[in-house]
Amino acid sequence: MSILTVGSVAYDDIITPFDSRERSLGGSATYFGLAAQHFASVNLVAVVGEDFNLADEELLANKGVDLTGLEKVEGKTFYWKGEYMANWNDRVTHDTQLNVFEHFKPKLPDNYRDCEYLFLGNIHPSLQGDVLRQMSTRPKITALDTMNLWIQHTRTDLLEVIKQVDILLVNDSEAMMLSGQMQLVEAAKTIGRMGPSTVIIKQGEHGALLIQGERLFSVPAYPLCNVVDPTGAGDTFAGGFLGYLAKTGDHSFENMRRALVYGSVMGSFTVESFSIDRCAAIGLEDIEKRYAAFVELTHFLA
Amino acid sequence: MSILTVGSVAYDDIITPFDSRERSLGGSATYFGLAAQHFASVNLVAVVGEDFNLADEELLANKGVDLTGLEKVEGKTFYWKGEYMANWNDRVTHDTQLNVFEHFKPKLPDNYRDCEYLFLGNIHPSLQGDVLRQMSTRPKITALDTMNLWIQHTRTDLLEVIKQVDILLVNDSEAMMLSGQMQLVEAAKTIGRMGPSTVIIKQGEHGALLIQGERLFSVPAYPLCNVVDPTGAGDTFAGGFLGYLAKTGDHSFENMRRALVYGSVMGSFTVESFSIDRCAAIGLEDIEKRYAAFVELTHFLA
Repeated sequence: MSILTVGSVAYDDIITPFDSRERSLGGSATYFGLAAQHFASVNLVAVVGEDFNLADEELLANKGVDLTGLEKVEGKTFYWKGEYMANWNDRVTHDTQLNVFEHFKPKLPDNYRDCEYLFLGNIHPSLQGDVLRQMSTRPKITALDTMNLWIQHTRTDLLEVIKQVDILLVNDSEAMMLSGQMQLVEAAKTIGRMGPSTVIIKQGEHGALLIQGERLFSVPAYPLCNVVDPTGAGDTFAGGFLGYLAKTGDHSFENMRRALVYGSVMGSFTVESFSIDRCAAIGLEDIEKRYAAFVELTHFLA
Repeated sequence: MSILTVGSVAYDDIITPFDSRERSLGGSATYFGLAAQHFASVNLVAVVGEDFNLADEELLANKGVDLTGLEKVEGKTFYWKGEYMANWNDRVTHDTQLNVFEHFKPKLPDNYRDCEYLFLGNIHPSLQGDVLRQMSTRPKITALDTMNLWIQHTRTDLLEVIKQVDILLVNDSEAMMLSGQMQLVEAAKTIGRMGPSTVIIKQGEHGALLIQGERLFSVPAYPLCNVVDPTGAGDTFAGGFLGYLAKTGDHSFENMRRALVYGSVMGSFTVESFSIDRCAAIGLEDIEKRYAAFVELTHFLA
């Protein structure tokens, strides 16, 4: 089963309380793709500039990520410089250079248009809408990620695209902002009435919530991991989640529970290194081992 | 099986973002006792003043909490006035009047001295030590709660008493402060080397962690509850936890997992009302129903 992801490919300069890394490969499509490819084949639509390293392209290709949809255009690749504060929760953006991303218009190769799983990464909602219009068939599952910027400034566009998706992924403050509700379960129910039958609330170091109507599932973050760089945790979380759904083809709530745990597993690996280093280095055995650790971490006798 | 709890009985004035309540029955021993009595018989040692309401005494007694150890002395009952901010996490103390609590010296009735389960509520560590010295036999399980005040200002006394207990309950910032570690699992391991074989880290709206050597268990907070007043959630959590251990007599890690869920169940009821209202109103059927909701909330196919 194929997953199509549309989002950013970027170079990030990252500063953490303990270390820093320059020109580290990042972007929502990169992180999502490298996580999801452990479970299913991935088609990627994004744009990069002339400075994009061949080694990075090869890394993605060697992992089986289809790059037919990766446009290369004149100019420089999207660049972000950010710093994590001592508590890891506060993040300061020092610089954002959209570069080639400024005029990005996603163009889906013909053979991507019937993908059965679609992940709309965190980009302008009108671009997310463009992608939906280019699909020849409605995907079995469309999941969408967004952020405070779009919720505040492009709310109409966002609501229009949210209406058409099955799963919305947001963090807790975004869920509150989008819904106007302070309580997370109420927020998810309100969002559910906007379109998505399933709402996933990402809570960073506190795990994630899966909400579908009256049904609720909670998974903690993996408390043992040694946080090096949280960048990309949310996108690899989405990659693990949607990847597992695509692999199994089972969209029941029971299977979405497992998918949420696989998402948490992928997120937990991502934060253990800068960039995609750890996520690209692991194999299925590592993933299954950590999944088992989540069972050990959360289960008790009913 | 009997549990002995030593702590405070208080009157609280509580202000929340939505409501307020004056002279609401509170205190660590009150909350702990009313939660634990659902599982085992409870002996309470605390002090109150002449203003202590007969109705409150009867409420505790009618719930089966043994009040032989409740001293009544000249003066007024411990009083606290606090306000919760809009995010529920920040709490401001407007007033604290120790009153009769200022000269409180716990005196254990003879028939309390061989209790097999002991909960040392959040009071001055030297008083916690006094209680330990009055026990005629070492309890099967001694659990201790403390706070930033004692960690900062009476560290030597605290370390002396921590050395002698089996289980320490703290919140995340207290765990970091006590251990000097920023990462919770590392913090718990450091605390483990101070004496307690088991460390419980309370994370409020984010649940709780149980740590015993290399073993870890995480339970979320119950996301559906309608928060009215968080006061006492930590003490009722401890009451559910230790109550279940006393009821079952099984101190294995597997059973502590279940105990932690019962603790979370009791905490989730407590926050649904001011004071002990909800915690005193529920029965075993409500408790089991919510335990089942925690199973539904957390389990997935291994």
